[in-house]
Amino acid sequence: MPRKLSKLKIIPLGGLYEIGKNITVIEYENDIIIVDCGIIFPEDEMLGIDVVIPDISYLMKNRDKIKGIFLTHGHEDHIGALPYILKKIRAPIYGTKFTIGLVENKLQEHKINNVKLNVVKPGNWIKQGCFKIEFISTNHSIPDSVALAIHTPVGTVVHTGDFKIDYTPINGEIIDLHKFAELGKKGVLVLMADSTNVERPGYTMSERTVGETFKDIFAEAKRRILVATFASNIHRIQQVIDAAVLFDRKVAVSGRSMVNAVNVAYELGYLRIPDGTLIDINDIDQYPDNKIVIITTGSQGEPMSALARIASSGHKKVELMPGDLVVISATPIPGNEKTVAKVINQLFKRGAEVIYEALADVHVSGHAKREELKLIHSLLKPKFFIPVHGEYRHLKQHAQLAQELGMPEENVFIAENGSVIEFTKNSGKITHTVNAGNILVDGLGIGDVGNIVLRDRKHLSEDGLIVVVVTISKENGEILAGPDIISRGFVYVRESEDLMEEAKEVVREALIECEKNRITDWATLKSSIKDTLRSYIYGKIKRNPMILPIIMEV
Amino acid sequence: MPRKLSKLKIIPLGGLYEIGKNITVIEYENDIIIVDCGIIFPEDEMLGIDVVIPDISYLMKNRDKIKGIFLTHGHEDHIGALPYILKKIRAPIYGTKFTIGLVENKLQEHKINNVKLNVVKPGNWIKQGCFKIEFISTNHSIPDSVALAIHTPVGTVVHTGDFKIDYTPINGEIIDLHKFAELGKKGVLVLMADSTNVERPGYTMSERTVGETFKDIFAEAKRRILVATFASNIHRIQQVIDAAVLFDRKVAVSGRSMVNAVNVAYELGYLRIPDGTLIDINDIDQYPDNKIVIITTGSQGEPMSALARIASSGHKKVELMPGDLVVISATPIPGNEKTVAKVINQLFKRGAEVIYEALADVHVSGHAKREELKLIHSLLKPKFFIPVHGEYRHLKQHAQLAQELGMPEENVFIAENGSVIEFTKNSGKITHTVNAGNILVDGLGIGDVGNIVLRDRKHLSEDGLIVVVVTISKENGEILAGPDIISRGFVYVRESEDLMEEAKEVVREALIECEKNRITDWATLKSSIKDTLRSYIYGKIKRNPMILPIIMEV
Repeated sequence: MPRKLSKLKIIPLGGLYEIGKNITVIEYENDIIIVDCGIIFPEDEMLGIDVVIPDISYLMKNRDKIKGIFLTHGHEDHIGALPYILKKIRAPIYGTKFTIGLVENKLQEHKINNVKLNVVKPGNWIKQGCFKIEFISTNHSIPDSVALAIHTPVGTVVHTGDFKIDYTPINGEIIDLHKFAELGKKGVLVLMADSTNVERPGYTMSERTVGETFKDIFAEAKRRILVATFASNIHRIQQVIDAAVLFDRKVAVSGRSMVNAVNVAYELGYLRIPDGTLIDINDIDQYPDNKIVIITTGSQGEPMSALARIASSGHKKVELMPGDLVVISATPIPGNEKTVAKVINQLFKRGAEVIYEALADVHVSGHAKREELKLIHSLLKPKFFIPVHGEYRHLKQHAQLAQELGMPEENVFIAENGSVIEFTKNSGKITHTVNAGNILVDGLGIGDVGNIVLRDRKHLSEDGLIVVVVTISKENGEILAGPDIISRGFVYVRESEDLMEEAKEVVREALIECEKNRITDWATLKSSIKDTLRSYIYGKIKRNPMILPIIMEV
Repeated sequence: MPRKLSKLKIIPLGGLYEIGKNITVIEYENDIIIVDCGIIFPEDEMLGIDVVIPDISYLMKNRDKIKGIFLTHGHEDHIGALPYILKKIRAPIYGTKFTIGLVENKLQEHKINNVKLNVVKPGNWIKQGCFKIEFISTNHSIPDSVALAIHTPVGTVVHTGDFKIDYTPINGEIIDLHKFAELGKKGVLVLMADSTNVERPGYTMSERTVGETFKDIFAEAKRRILVATFASNIHRIQQVIDAAVLFDRKVAVSGRSMVNAVNVAYELGYLRIPDGTLIDINDIDQYPDNKIVIITTGSQGEPMSALARIASSGHKKVELMPGDLVVISATPIPGNEKTVAKVINQLFKRGAEVIYEALADVHVSGHAKREELKLIHSLLKPKFFIPVHGEYRHLKQHAQLAQELGMPEENVFIAENGSVIEFTKNSGKITHTVNAGNILVDGLGIGDVGNIVLRDRKHLSEDGLIVVVVTISKENGEILAGPDIISRGFVYVRESEDLMEEAKEVVREALIECEKNRITDWATLKSSIKDTLRSYIYGKIKRNPMILPIIMEV
């Protein structure tokens, strides 16, 4: 009798109900592999937080099983948490050449050594534990992105990573549809696929269409051209360079991450730059205006980025001149609309022409829209489907799309971060949940800022703070000094002297009342100060500052 | 010899370089009229601020000249500042019936009496001082919107207000193109026109197209239908009611501002509701699911709105059931994208079907796009043009549009809030600037929160606060109590006990050092505490909390 097979576990620890922080655990018996390891940027209400990383306590409990971390591509929401995670668990890392190049830089910055980095070519495969992991070439807004076909003892799991279908990609490498077809023919147990653009009908346009727009724009430009885009979008940068070469312009690069990206991409062979095209940003004034293109960061309006500094005349090397043309070759990520608009307004005010998404086709998405998703589903014909990379509405609509293509509802799993989905050859089921969630990073502190701290920050941000200090006698509770009142973020003290003086009087009366009633315990004293002052302030100006009573005993 | 004519002054006090806070002063000799008086919602960095109103110190200086306030329509960015402004200046108010109805409610809420409200019919005119002001019917996303033709001694000024051109409006009243044509034929000196949609090519679709989508959606719906939209969009509400009647559904209304709007609109005759159609929200369970439509607030994802409460099961009257259909008939206002997305995700999670802008044509804009703007410019043929209602990029592009239509560049004025633009019959010029700007309203405080307070709120929100208190002897500077350290919004104190203990020690050492060096003045002591603690904390966890040293003397 053949040995009964164990179950395959798929555990997304991030990337569900959110766009970002992608990380998935694939587990079979004593083997675990991890797909991606990303960050997400903080929500508005996470005041003061720098980045958010996944809770990996499940992996820490199972650290001995971990055979490797497999990366689909080099975006921050897929590799950004590595420096934090690698302090807790160690595992070899596998990725394509460009992805590993970016990871190498990142680990150096964080002074992390002794991590084995392995470059895998698309089309090749790796065996780790019971798994065989194939790297499949895809198209996306960063070079060298791959999907993974993970062959397990109970069947094949395909994880698309982020992808689109580009029949005319800049590097000539079309997503490997033949491999998807072959996998589909042999049989796919589970598909996990990118849901980012599932709300959008039709097809995402080819990256090449942006290059055509660039050519039209460059042909008309009379003075300098500045193009802002994502530093990792190397094919976009390639098209800027190609257009520059076509119109006999030199190219300079501005912004730390853009300089890094261009260097890495050039060194690894992902950018073709004819000799003499690239010039130093310090030398731009040595050329006529109509011979210059500047590629820059800041397409999201980030306040410290090169473009934002150029727009506010705070850039040391680039001074904007009337007639300069600025192309913002990106879409605002949700939440960045207003910062991008601010930079556009500033650029216009300084006399520049500005071309952005509302005005011309200077950007295409890196994610598959509905018809592309249908093609991948149809080629792979998976038995089970787990939509990933999306907020709930995306997962739900991707699930509906799979059902429209004929998949039974019970074979689709809308999971949550931490859901454990167990598969046999013929069945799948969400069985239970493990720890998963957000770990907030603030400065060097990882996880030391939580809900109480955030709630206090929010309170302080909206109404400011009043500190009340009073020194009382240890012996008889008599007031020896104070009450003093200090406020921050509350009102202009100079214009509100009366209010603050009256507030002091109100506190003094409350304390005297306590003394009369022989109340001496600090907790009661403090809450008496708090309550009295709160209702006085609210009655006066309908605000609710944080009140911090401090009692010193001498 | 004829008397030399004075100059006409046009002074926008709000609405330029911003979308909102619209208010314009028209002045000739001893007469001033004001067009609109709106608020703008606070920018993200204006922490804790409720609304922003215009600085009207110019009007306060010239209060004796003011003849009236003329309103183009009843949106908050055109009437919202009236309650604040009317505490500083008094003037009769003129508007159409629906606009005055909304103003009346607003002034009652703020307990403002003794303001003369005058209802003017579109097509009629008012004489005030040297001005004759004509009300011209337009189309917009609120009923009874008008443009104003202001006849002055030096020529006619046309202010469009917010407008679009709708050939098939819900109330049958097409924007009065004949009047625009007539004015153009007689001669227009200055045009001030809405720039909101100048970036968008083509025409804004008719409001009626949304009704067609509603009919398609209602025809398919199997259970309850909820429609969220702006309370003031009465024509949209009319179309929901019409679709409900067509499919034999009852209509209930939820959300305070929606209930108010429906009442006002119905009483004033702006909503046609067949008898028996409207039911109380308490009675919805008495009807079958497929006989119910609920119209609700919350189309911007506002956390306290009816729809947000329905989505999070916090609504007392409406419990969402799987299969209910929610239609969000609005576009997120820039900055609200994430709150709207959050509500959509919650609705999906609760099993509702959700239809929103990305998925169907359930919204049209209320503002004219490029081709509509061209029509108005071409009909009016103004000598001079001031683009209004827009951020700088909109004003600039609207200026370019006017030039494309043949206006000389020197006849177009991209002004700022506070710019004084002076006109004779043949000339126009920006001559100088008067006070204009933002007055921040926080609770009952108007203007008592400024840059320092906001900077402190921002600092507190990002890194929290550390208060250091120490009581010292008046006589010899000896430490009598403390130093004590209290933090808020900084770290979880429980998990960071060591850090806080060490911090206390660091402060104690700094104080002892001061004592040794016979430093007794408080300023030096405080800055010594601050600097020592700041560098200790930053070295430990790379954070920069606000540090508030307090010294008590006994």
